[in-house]
Amino acid sequence: MKAPGERLHDTQGSGLARVNPDLASERLTASFCVPSLTAVLDGGAERTRVRRAVVDVIESDPVFSRENQYFQSQNERYEAAVRKAVHLRKKMQDMGWSEDGPESVYIYRALSGDVAFLLHRVFMRSISVLGSDKQVAKWIPLATEHRLIGSYAQTELGHGTYLQGLETTAVFDISTQEFILNTPTISAMKWWPGDMGRSATHTVVFAQLYIHGKCYGVHPFIVQIRSLQDHSPCPGVIAGDIGPKMNFEHIDNGYLMLKNVRIPRENMLNKFCEVQPDGTYIRHGSQQINYFTMTSLRISLIADEVILPLMKACTIAIRYSVVRRQSKLKPGEEEAKILDYQTQQEKLLPQLAAAYAFHFINNYLHELFNKGYKEIQGRNFALLPELHALSSGFKAMISQYCTSGVDICLRACGGHGYSLLSGLPSLYTKILASCIYEGENTILLLQTARFLIKCFTAARAGQPVPPSVTYLAAMKPRKCPAKDKLDFLSPDIYTEAYQHAAIRLISSTAAKLQDLIQSGAERHEAWNQCTVQLVQAAKAHCHYITVKNFVETVEKLENTAGIQNIMKHLCDLFALHGIFSNAGIFLHDGYITGAQMDMVTASYLDLLGIIRKDAVPLVDAFDFTDKNLNSALGSYDGQVYQRLYEWAQKAPTNKQISPAYEKYLKPLLHNKLSKL
Amino acid sequence: MKAPGERLHDTQGSGLARVNPDLASERLTASFCVPSLTAVLDGGAERTRVRRAVVDVIESDPVFSRENQYFQSQNERYEAAVRKAVHLRKKMQDMGWSEDGPESVYIYRALSGDVAFLLHRVFMRSISVLGSDKQVAKWIPLATEHRLIGSYAQTELGHGTYLQGLETTAVFDISTQEFILNTPTISAMKWWPGDMGRSATHTVVFAQLYIHGKCYGVHPFIVQIRSLQDHSPCPGVIAGDIGPKMNFEHIDNGYLMLKNVRIPRENMLNKFCEVQPDGTYIRHGSQQINYFTMTSLRISLIADEVILPLMKACTIAIRYSVVRRQSKLKPGEEEAKILDYQTQQEKLLPQLAAAYAFHFINNYLHELFNKGYKEIQGRNFALLPELHALSSGFKAMISQYCTSGVDICLRACGGHGYSLLSGLPSLYTKILASCIYEGENTILLLQTARFLIKCFTAARAGQPVPPSVTYLAAMKPRKCPAKDKLDFLSPDIYTEAYQHAAIRLISSTAAKLQDLIQSGAERHEAWNQCTVQLVQAAKAHCHYITVKNFVETVEKLENTAGIQNIMKHLCDLFALHGIFSNAGIFLHDGYITGAQMDMVTASYLDLLGIIRKDAVPLVDAFDFTDKNLNSALGSYDGQVYQRLYEWAQKAPTNKQISPAYEKYLKPLLHNKLSKL
Repeated sequence: MKAPGERLHDTQGSGLARVNPDLASERLTASFCVPSLTAVLDGGAERTRVRRAVVDVIESDPVFSRENQYFQSQNERYEAAVRKAVHLRKKMQDMGWSEDGPESVYIYRALSGDVAFLLHRVFMRSISVLGSDKQVAKWIPLATEHRLIGSYAQTELGHGTYLQGLETTAVFDISTQEFILNTPTISAMKWWPGDMGRSATHTVVFAQLYIHGKCYGVHPFIVQIRSLQDHSPCPGVIAGDIGPKMNFEHIDNGYLMLKNVRIPRENMLNKFCEVQPDGTYIRHGSQQINYFTMTSLRISLIADEVILPLMKACTIAIRYSVVRRQSKLKPGEEEAKILDYQTQQEKLLPQLAAAYAFHFINNYLHELFNKGYKEIQGRNFALLPELHALSSGFKAMISQYCTSGVDICLRACGGHGYSLLSGLPSLYTKILASCIYEGENTILLLQTARFLIKCFTAARAGQPVPPSVTYLAAMKPRKCPAKDKLDFLSPDIYTEAYQHAAIRLISSTAAKLQDLIQSGAERHEAWNQCTVQLVQAAKAHCHYITVKNFVETVEKLENTAGIQNIMKHLCDLFALHGIFSNAGIFLHDGYITGAQMDMVTASYLDLLGIIRKDAVPLVDAFDFTDKNLNSALGSYDGQVYQRLYEWAQKAPTNKQISPAYEKYLKPLLHNKLSKL
Repeated sequence: MKAPGERLHDTQGSGLARVNPDLASERLTASFCVPSLTAVLDGGAERTRVRRAVVDVIESDPVFSRENQYFQSQNERYEAAVRKAVHLRKKMQDMGWSEDGPESVYIYRALSGDVAFLLHRVFMRSISVLGSDKQVAKWIPLATEHRLIGSYAQTELGHGTYLQGLETTAVFDISTQEFILNTPTISAMKWWPGDMGRSATHTVVFAQLYIHGKCYGVHPFIVQIRSLQDHSPCPGVIAGDIGPKMNFEHIDNGYLMLKNVRIPRENMLNKFCEVQPDGTYIRHGSQQINYFTMTSLRISLIADEVILPLMKACTIAIRYSVVRRQSKLKPGEEEAKILDYQTQQEKLLPQLAAAYAFHFINNYLHELFNKGYKEIQGRNFALLPELHALSSGFKAMISQYCTSGVDICLRACGGHGYSLLSGLPSLYTKILASCIYEGENTILLLQTARFLIKCFTAARAGQPVPPSVTYLAAMKPRKCPAKDKLDFLSPDIYTEAYQHAAIRLISSTAAKLQDLIQSGAERHEAWNQCTVQLVQAAKAHCHYITVKNFVETVEKLENTAGIQNIMKHLCDLFALHGIFSNAGIFLHDGYITGAQMDMVTASYLDLLGIIRKDAVPLVDAFDFTDKNLNSALGSYDGQVYQRLYEWAQKAPTNKQISPAYEKYLKPLLHNKLSKL
């Protein structure tokens, strides 16, 4: 009988059964119970059960297989993704899974995102949020039944984050009761929307609304772009695929040009504003809810698109690092597992700790978000600024950290990490996009910084501020009280160091801003001159909240099966790694002295050795199946070399004699003798 | 008539002629003469002439075009690379270019490495260096005429850097006067050698030599692997392609298994050691030259594979950043060029400064190498340890820095940087490999560290040390004398800060090592426990030498045409960026105080504004052609949006109606009405 933790770890049809002994031995000495930790990560054993059931269903269906993913062209990836999307609809009906059921979060995770029509979901969400009841009643059923494929056309070739700069126009023609949509310049072309290059029949277009020659700003319009009879472009529509990207080959990110495309008046999404038949423009209620949509998107992507990839990369790199042996640690002994080298530990284990830290902060953000959502339903928007600031800053900070973490894992696997078959290159090229989409990270951090500066000023003036920033009111210019390296394993000591650093960076930048303005700089110019430091301050704030939340999470964990213990070590490691790697921030004003920094370093390096022992169980607890990892290096059985060899043989480069031989090589090489 | 600096900047057949006015205006205000700086970078105007002549020849030949590179499959890239390699041979004959002529360095640069048979050159080099005169006389003419295609099979599936661990065996059979080669385990399979997967007919195999059951260690053997009649594998040979990688799609990195493959005794490369007919093993002279080969390889790759990609990435990102406008810096004005934001300057301009810094340190390394080469020809090996340590450390430090620099440039271009058409993704995925091949960076830095610790100990004992490390003898526990931010523009001030930091890190790690050993740790274990800090120390040493060399280079530049001036600014920026980003190292012992660090920050941020003005001329001086950049974002004319649109239309995704429509979409969508 298989143990629960092993149930899902098939060997992906390779016929390999034996676990590599170097990997097996790592599992014998775990200081905690792996399934218990998995349950903690899932939020309870029941959720683990649901997740595994979903994974079983998805992975046992050959249509959802990713087996050939690394060998496919952009065209093949797209075709497979469309097939999966269509098949998924049927599957969900068969299984009785709904879009908001307990299974839904696990479905896309099990598919590893390799499925089309994600923008169709955004299309639906935007109609639900921005459309009137009548519009919802018309479009949502059509979309639900996939009788149309929707997309969401906001970004333009020359315009991204700055929505006010969009150039597409929608002019109201009172005589026909239509909007006439146009792409006035090349930079106004819609560019990047997913599902739009080849699939979508409809899209929500964001355009500048003009009535009687007056501009009313950016509004959303439903526009049909392809025929439902033969999929040809509608009159006045020029659309296509934007070509190859660093990843997302399966998605048809598209371009769209509109030339006098006419749509009925009813196609402007009009929950919040309306153009009446006579051209009168009316605004209904608050648009703050738009603000909330962005917040919701940013928070929702953190788990699947950012933290999961890091967890996968850690799993692959850590398993590989106990199978791979290289050089000798001790003369005369056999070659050492590379994870026994301090430098390899120092690359990988902080990434592992970060994956846990971010998993827990993600829970915190979701709680905050759900609380905010309830308030908003009761028309209370008070939580919005904090929620917006946190979602912006954390999306940026976590995506940047995790992207760098995946990169480190890839490089730590040497040459084999560089092979697509390791799974690491595609994890990297995909997670990298998360630093750019849904708000470019630098811009997001500056939004957080603006909130922090505002709160700091308010707090120092004795005004009330949101809970996450009350610490800014504290004014205690102190020194770190640590006396030896063990003191740095005290959460109070390091959490206060982070708090101190965040306050110092925020207050010193606020002071610089003030100085510049007082010495005559214009406000916007002063702001620009402080932005490098504002970004630092926003990161320090998010880092502090992450550490604090990790500490609080550990405190709340029951000490069953050694879990609290090992989580405490990871928390310490995450915190001390941050101090070690950003030493300048803590040393700057002498809060931590050079001698204390040596203690930090000593404790940090000691922790590497401690966590090293549990490294494999700690990644096993993430409970990824081999199929989900899709990595020749990271499988549960550690049969790294066999799998690399077997997979390589399936490559298209080995399936044909290259025409290059006949055309170019044979004329050079051909010889009466076959041997020299 | 075109100005010299513009001669090469065609518009890649796009029919675009006009330079984007936002980009054009940047060129009007250059504080220096661009062609003069190009000549400085080339090492004289004559070299510029030769380089451009080569580039003209290569780029005007359609066989060498990279126009469709971003749309091609691995098979297509391979075929094109083989075609180019074969065509190149003819071209070089036609042009009278030789492999060691003045043109040679520019040929591969102009081809952007997209050509096969680079390992054929390594095959030839290894025979020249390791083969006897007789072997050279037999094999080199065959290889030169391409009557065989060679490869170089050292790395194994389970063995990389640690050569002693190789498992392939070569057993001498005295009865037939042959070596019998075998791959005893799966991890012994040769894995990664370029040109071996599909092209090579011969390869140099590194294997453990056995005679009469005794192992004599790793030796090189020439092995034929494919027939010269029909290219089929020779008996006992199993070879193929290792499959898709993160880049290098054009190269057939291969695997090779040998089963009782017999080769004549004469095929062991025997300049340095020989197996006589009776099985007697004889070693001739020194093997230190092998050491030198690695050094030479590492130094030779820095320019083309590491620094050039960063220069290209800077060119693309900086040109794009003055064309792209986003948001408003000042209310009421038009949207600002993104390079006018401090955060964008802080991303890109330090990378630009680093590209210059590394170009100059590369010149320094080449001078040192050439000097060493002369000494070695005179049988003096005294320079070898220093050369080995410097080449290892600088290969690691520069490749790591430049890889991160390319990554920053990519992200700084937002969504468009993520498109393959920007050219940035392939620059990144390729340069990343340079952190891994020819010695994994961490291992290389530890080799440098070993040298530094040795020299430090010697220096402190008053013994003589090589010139690059004499500074370690200094013992001056001082404070940085800077009094205001302008002091940090003094090269003496910052060079001394770097020197101080390097000495501190080396001496403190040496002390830790000593302490551990004195308190009973075994030597190898003590070493392992210091490796994280040893890596830091080695990096600090290389960083110091780079800054010092930049300062000395600037001093030597004549101040013609404003060049010394602008180079001084770049040197300051490179140095202060390093202090700003690694503040902890300088603050640790109070050499630089917090107040002084604020001065560093102020001067650093001021410099960004100064260099911003010359950013475009500074990348124009790199003198890349549009064809060489192959970037829709980076062309000389700045017609970013038009080019993205034109190139996207050529994508294969736009050349066919996807079968996905008929198969999966039509059954869902098809409707009697074409419109909803």
